[in-house]
Amino acid sequence: MAEPTKPPESPFAGGQKFRMIDVGGKQPTQRRAVAAGRIQMSAAAFDAILRGANPKGDVLAQAEVAGMMAAKRTADLLPLCHPLPLDQVAVRFELVPASREVVARCEAAATAKTGVEMEVLAGVCGALLAVYDLCKAVDPVLTITDVHLEVKEGGKSGRWVHPLHGTGR
Amino acid sequence: MAEPTKPPESPFAGGQKFRMIDVGGKQPTQRRAVAAGRIQMSAAAFDAILRGANPKGDVLAQAEVAGMMAAKRTADLLPLCHPLPLDQVAVRFELVPASREVVARCEAAATAKTGVEMEVLAGVCGALLAVYDLCKAVDPVLTITDVHLEVKEGGKSGRWVHPLHGTGR
Amino acid sequence: MAEPTKPPESPFAGGQKFRMIDVGGKQPTQRRAVAAGRIQMSAAAFDAILRGANPKGDVLAQAEVAGMMAAKRTADLLPLCHPLPLDQVAVRFELVPASREVVARCEAAATAKTGVEMEVLAGVCGALLAVYDLCKAVDPVLTITDVHLEVKEGGKSGRWVHPLHGTGR
Amino acid sequence: MAEPTKPPESPFAGGQKFRMIDVGGKQPTQRRAVAAGRIQMSAAAFDAILRGANPKGDVLAQAEVAGMMAAKRTADLLPLCHPLPLDQVAVRFELVPASREVVARCEAAATAKTGVEMEVLAGVCGALLAVYDLCKAVDPVLTITDVHLEVKEGGKSGRWVHPLHGTGR
Amino acid sequence: MAEPTKPPESPFAGGQKFRMIDVGGKQPTQRRAVAAGRIQMSAAAFDAILRGANPKGDVLAQAEVAGMMAAKRTADLLPLCHPLPLDQVAVRFELVPASREVVARCEAAATAKTGVEMEVLAGVCGALLAVYDLCKAVDPVLTITDVHLEVKEGGKSGRWVHPLHGTGR
Amino acid sequence: MAEPTKPPESPFAGGQKFRMIDVGGKQPTQRRAVAAGRIQMSAAAFDAILRGANPKGDVLAQAEVAGMMAAKRTADLLPLCHPLPLDQVAVRFELVPASREVVARCEAAATAKTGVEMEVLAGVCGALLAVYDLCKAVDPVLTITDVHLEVKEGGKSGRWVHPLHGTGR
Repeated sequence: MAEPTKPPESPFAGGQKFRMIDVGGKQPTQRRAVAAGRIQMSAAAFDAILRGANPKGDVLAQAEVAGMMAAKRTADLLPLCHPLPLDQVAVRFELVPASREVVARCEAAATAKTGVEMEVLAGVCGALLAVYDLCKAVDPVLTITDVHLEVKEGGKSGRWVHPLHGTGR
Repeated sequence: MAEPTKPPESPFAGGQKFRMIDVGGKQPTQRRAVAAGRIQMSAAAFDAILRGANPKGDVLAQAEVAGMMAAKRTADLLPLCHPLPLDQVAVRFELVPASREVVARCEAAATAKTGVEMEVLAGVCGALLAVYDLCKAVDPVLTITDVHLEVKEGGKSGRWVHPLHGTGR
Repeated sequence: MAEPTKPPESPFAGGQKFRMIDVGGKQPTQRRAVAAGRIQMSAAAFDAILRGANPKGDVLAQAEVAGMMAAKRTADLLPLCHPLPLDQVAVRFELVPASREVVARCEAAATAKTGVEMEVLAGVCGALLAVYDLCKAVDPVLTITDVHLEVKEGGKSGRWVHPLHGTGR
Repeated sequence: MAEPTKPPESPFAGGQKFRMIDVGGKQPTQRRAVAAGRIQMSAAAFDAILRGANPKGDVLAQAEVAGMMAAKRTADLLPLCHPLPLDQVAVRFELVPASREVVARCEAAATAKTGVEMEVLAGVCGALLAVYDLCKAVDPVLTITDVHLEVKEGGKSGRWVHPLHGTGR
Repeated sequence: MAEPTKPPESPFAGGQKFRMIDVGGKQPTQRRAVAAGRIQMSAAAFDAILRGANPKGDVLAQAEVAGMMAAKRTADLLPLCHPLPLDQVAVRFELVPASREVVARCEAAATAKTGVEMEVLAGVCGALLAVYDLCKAVDPVLTITDVHLEVKEGGKSGRWVHPLHGTGR
Repeated sequence: MAEPTKPPESPFAGGQKFRMIDVGGKQPTQRRAVAAGRIQMSAAAFDAILRGANPKGDVLAQAEVAGMMAAKRTADLLPLCHPLPLDQVAVRFELVPASREVVARCEAAATAKTGVEMEVLAGVCGALLAVYDLCKAVDPVLTITDVHLEVKEGGKSGRWVHPLHGTGR
């Protein structure tokens, strides 16, 4: 194997284009994170959820399961995420009649060397995609919006709260 | 986000319909569990296994692999199951000529905060489904039956044995 | 590559131990199948489902989702199953107070070259495993039983009905 | 199996809570859909992408792959989605310096009995989650927003365009 | 969304870095492919396979299953591969005592718009990795080598045979 | 369940054909492994990588992602592999103009009870399969070869180096 040539334009030693963080030297600590996001819909679609009249069934029950499953599959969806032994995952919803929005919130915890931010964000996206899937026959103009991290705890940076959290943004 | 409304009929705080147990405060301990189940078949299908003459191949070898794979995929199949770092999985079979049944038994172990009951039950179901798949061309009247937990060990409840275990039920 | 030696004891040409059916020469036809199975539980666990009081949440809603997901993942669980473009999957439950059983029934359809028997059987097992998972904190003595095919339609063998179907077995 | 009791509160015949659409009677037609979404970030994170200086590597290359993989895994993430033989998936990005946003757009096509809307929406979410994952060390205040369907074609409803498409909304 | 900027250095229109072939305009035809590869091992490891004495069990039975599963999961492993409804997958082995090699051969067929080359190559790699896994306790110096396509058929290019096929290379 | 009969020809107690090592009694230690492999191609395909002119896009960026994903999915591909919480995965490439080869190297680390050899070997195979997939339109005569373990560290056997490592073999 004479004359090896490094691939051009690589930012890392050894020709890599991507770098998963090495958590080998870290100790596991208790991690927790919460993310939230919303889906906007028409009055017809929103009322169908409120009245339990969506033609595909119980929207929030299915979205809750889809969100938990997506959170558990994060390391399989995102190339640089470490597989994590989650201690808990929960997905909750709020219905906001004034804006005809369903707010999804995912919370997860792990005793791990890295945080669970991507797990809760994937959980919110999975849950909102399922709401979309069940509502799209009623209303084709749906928007998933404002998916963001609200809180994370654990690790050396400690507790972090989104700067707009609690302000009603 | 004014006027949030909790979804109706939710049994939990925050509007959830499902609750994964939070194992964050627990210490990992050695867990072990064994589950068993049976598949009933005709004499023709049973004899084909005994004689190694099933037209799709080595029934028990394939079912053993399918059972181990299913056990390892439990948290991906069951929404409320925690992903567990299994220390071991084993699937074994017994052939019972008198009743023309194949008994599948799955045993798993983990050093974990929660038990491995669902892993061994999923392993038994995966193994018996594979037996079914390989035998159904010989005999379309197959029944998977009596899938139950035999033993579990570890955790605060300690060793548990099924009340009919060892009685020949 | 001189002197190739066939592995011993292989039942097929070329040394294979397993044989997936080659459906390449077949035309897709409309396939449908229904499978059923039951889970037996204590009065406490059964009543918790009836009253919506299971501590982990809405048992049948979660089991219905788990069953549909398992049916769609059949080719990934069973080595010899062909990946099929399912036209539909449905999971339904009946509650039988006299015997304190939940009956799960999975129906699937596909326009395919092979049947959907294993898909509906996997769907029943996935659904019943989820019922087990949600009920096991209430009652550790649960049994998944009598998982069998009820009906299949399509393909050259046409409609097939389980010999005991409709007899109350 | 005497005295079956239907579960309470089910909207569908047979006690189901969810209904996957049965596409068995439909003919496959050419389907196409495009979805878009954005992620908002700080000037530091945005510039790192522009200059190829993100500490985890080539953000858009990785997000493009993650988006394609998520689109292909849609039926495994969303319980009521049919598995579809996709003819094509593509993920593209635009960088908008004025608002420091990355716009992700996913396009997919299939010859199928149902549309590919959920596939492109899952593709956008997968891509934006990967952008989030690679940028979060630079900027913890990231927001995934405005994920919506832009166009869909094929099936009996023909071409549909989002009412605000092309207006710069 | 003013002032969109294309990402730099993209070879494709629209800023993409990768291009999955669009097979939407093609008609499905019968496809078939065969790939082969070998694993080299010590006399001790080779003899253990021949005598059925490998400490982890029946090496070739397990590798055959692992190869079939890997072939079916190709579109989930390789970002640009289309999901294909495989008509058949088979994995076979030859044992070559002179060189102490196990030759794995995977054959697959589909009625599809694109070929099954990557499926059979993934099948060979999956099978040989399983052989490696079962033999590595006996012999840590194992090499997977010479994984290549032997034959492909179907599609507009028709039958293709590797230039060295049949020469004993 | 009278008269159980052990399946014939089983090498293990209890009728098993396969044995996953039980790591329950082991303590987690820091594990690391590196594997390498090569893919040989024509001058045209090799030059297309060097010049960034492959018609499917950035070959090495995609292969790097595919390799990392395959390494993380090892326990799902190989029946006897334990699921491991990887601390890190990295995939690197070297281009060797003299032989027109791309060398892929995968390194992984975990704090675990068993080694990460199979993870790095699966990572190399996943990466080289992706290189194959992107180059095969340019050159149909590609060969994946010489996939082997270079180094492993950790566990009771300590550091192991392939006997030919560093010799240029």
